[in-house]
Amino acid sequence: MAVATPSVTDICRAAQTASRELAGMSSALKDAALLRVADALEERAPEILEANARDLEAGREAQLSPALMDRLALDPARIGSIAGAVRAIAALPDPVGEVIDGFRLANGLDVRKVRVPLGVIAVVYEARPNVTVDAAALCLKSGNAIVLRGSSSAAHSNAVLASIVAPEFPDGAVSLVSGGREQLAELAGQEGVVDLIIPRGGEGLKQALSAVAKVPVIYAASGNCHVYVDASADLDAALRIVLNAKTQRPGVCNAAETLLVHADAAGAFLPAAGAALRGAGVELRADERAAALLDGSVAATEADFAEEFLALVLAVKVVGSAEEAIEHVNRYGSGHSEAIVTGSAAAARAFQLRVDAACVYVNASTRFTDGGEFGMGAEIGNSTQKLHARGPIGLRELCTFKYLVEGDGQVRP
Amino acid sequence: MAVATPSVTDICRAAQTASRELAGMSSALKDAALLRVADALEERAPEILEANARDLEAGREAQLSPALMDRLALDPARIGSIAGAVRAIAALPDPVGEVIDGFRLANGLDVRKVRVPLGVIAVVYEARPNVTVDAAALCLKSGNAIVLRGSSSAAHSNAVLASIVAPEFPDGAVSLVSGGREQLAELAGQEGVVDLIIPRGGEGLKQALSAVAKVPVIYAASGNCHVYVDASADLDAALRIVLNAKTQRPGVCNAAETLLVHADAAGAFLPAAGAALRGAGVELRADERAAALLDGSVAATEADFAEEFLALVLAVKVVGSAEEAIEHVNRYGSGHSEAIVTGSAAAARAFQLRVDAACVYVNASTRFTDGGEFGMGAEIGNSTQKLHARGPIGLRELCTFKYLVEGDGQVRP
Repeated sequence: MAVATPSVTDICRAAQTASRELAGMSSALKDAALLRVADALEERAPEILEANARDLEAGREAQLSPALMDRLALDPARIGSIAGAVRAIAALPDPVGEVIDGFRLANGLDVRKVRVPLGVIAVVYEARPNVTVDAAALCLKSGNAIVLRGSSSAAHSNAVLASIVAPEFPDGAVSLVSGGREQLAELAGQEGVVDLIIPRGGEGLKQALSAVAKVPVIYAASGNCHVYVDASADLDAALRIVLNAKTQRPGVCNAAETLLVHADAAGAFLPAAGAALRGAGVELRADERAAALLDGSVAATEADFAEEFLALVLAVKVVGSAEEAIEHVNRYGSGHSEAIVTGSAAAARAFQLRVDAACVYVNASTRFTDGGEFGMGAEIGNSTQKLHARGPIGLRELCTFKYLVEGDGQVRP
Repeated sequence: MAVATPSVTDICRAAQTASRELAGMSSALKDAALLRVADALEERAPEILEANARDLEAGREAQLSPALMDRLALDPARIGSIAGAVRAIAALPDPVGEVIDGFRLANGLDVRKVRVPLGVIAVVYEARPNVTVDAAALCLKSGNAIVLRGSSSAAHSNAVLASIVAPEFPDGAVSLVSGGREQLAELAGQEGVVDLIIPRGGEGLKQALSAVAKVPVIYAASGNCHVYVDASADLDAALRIVLNAKTQRPGVCNAAETLLVHADAAGAFLPAAGAALRGAGVELRADERAAALLDGSVAATEADFAEEFLALVLAVKVVGSAEEAIEHVNRYGSGHSEAIVTGSAAAARAFQLRVDAACVYVNASTRFTDGGEFGMGAEIGNSTQKLHARGPIGLRELCTFKYLVEGDGQVRP
């Protein structure tokens, strides 16, 4: 494993060299290496916990928030689930070598479009040390070298975790870089060496990267998600879906932030829904028409409809038609996950065709947008970009493809 | 059609509004509109030629080079082939709505991954007015609005051509923007409005864009392509392939720029190949070992191996093994199109697995990397990027996808 002495550029170049070896590594070898990593994580738990204790100690001195301290902390159960995730990734089908398309041209040339690794992927992330192992396992399984840039608050934990993964793969395949904004800029400038940067973190990280990145970046995205209850909705199903989308795990990107209700359903739906949501601890910020049907809501501002609360807060608005709901979603949504609850085939079709988002649900909760739920195995984040990867970023999305063309002397006339 | 008065931002926002309508336009309506465009191009040829004459007159005054004047010039035959290209694009299958993947989850949710338009695509291009129509037809067929930014030297021709295409599609779907670097920067800053910029032009344009772009960019790429003649190659086929790859159309990105020859084949191959290439007007720049077997070559410098000549110039090098050839290609190549000529299954396999390029050929010319040749219909360029589109950029590559998920009340446990 690379240590801190070489420059970011040196580390990235070594990763590129390793990536050429990884691209040709068989599935059997990669999976065996990942299973050895999983075993080693459990065997070396005391060493991991000791390093983690040093990070926690430093975190206490630096007065990190309880939430950050919780994300930083490891215990034997958490180490067990990290090892379990590595075994699950080893069990997934290898995306490398999959023939995506193939055809014979009129002149006899045989063309295959084949999935291949991207090469070198850099992951920039914040406090959670489990990301070190998850991200490495996903990148290595898909034949990519990985450069990890974790948070300094988890430096000891990350170093031990990376030192457990790295020896099972070619030299340079797994590296940690540290340092401040200057090193981040050096990483983001590795055009032609690093093939993709995936930042996992808040707006500050996104701004810092987008100002300097020469390398392609896919942002693990925020989500301003909506549930629209149509005039013809089954109101029991609508209530279950809204409660689930808002409260089942409010701090994640596929949780709902706004409830839209058709005027014809509002009278029957909103009073009971409002009571249930308030009962679940949800603060309601309502437009004028919704507020008239809700007890104890506060007035919603324009900004509330644009905000990703990531908390037990829900904006509520009454709309006059499915069209108005679609327009609201396309105006304020972040293109992540959007749901309609309806009994109308026409409304369902219009919503699916016209809403511009990675995942558009009919009569289901937005909370299913997830690589694991979609059967893609683990994910390294969710993309709201339209290019390359949209929705969950799994093993296939960590790959590119090439065209392999075979002939017997064909030339172009 | 938008005229010059509104700002670039206004034009892009109108394009975004139009894109929502285009995304739902049926194939039948789009194809009928394209066929009317093709007819109108032929009917209004005199008007097009008159505008083109004004551009040519200005070009003569500005003392444009003969090559640029040729690219700028239209005549009835060229207008006929522009109309023909539009009819060919209308005849292609519609990529929009294609189900790429689909599955049912354990909880009964049905998931479809469906191809949808990107939204708004901006194409920035230089003198050739035919690009105005080609690019518009490709974007519109794939359900995208297009913002065209052509060269000022073709302004009159482009204006007439765009005014023929635009009325057949929703308002704002086809727009021309003009102006200098400031307007280019305004276009490149339309994050969230313009979904993709495709520049077609030289290094200067690429540099100018990459300095300011906030919007994703796919560069229609340059190609430093190689032909490697292995020890076991059929030398007659090798000569045909090298001549074709170098001379059939030397000014394009899939033409070969370097010939690599295995030392065991060099004695039998290079003297005759050199004579044939020189006979076709090719200047040879050879390394020491190759030069000893070639009459009239000049000494190759390191820079020659890195250069895309786009002319009748070929760098030549003798290598000791297929491995050395692969390393040379990965070091100097631009990831476009690479070919091996060999009788060895092992060498063919190693070359295809280990060469990192969009298209890797065995026993065929590099000249086949082309959307038309690959059966994708027309193309808007070739990408050497690894993300989103690699190789020819056709109708599918102008699309993204979304997941449509249908249920009957599912919530996440």
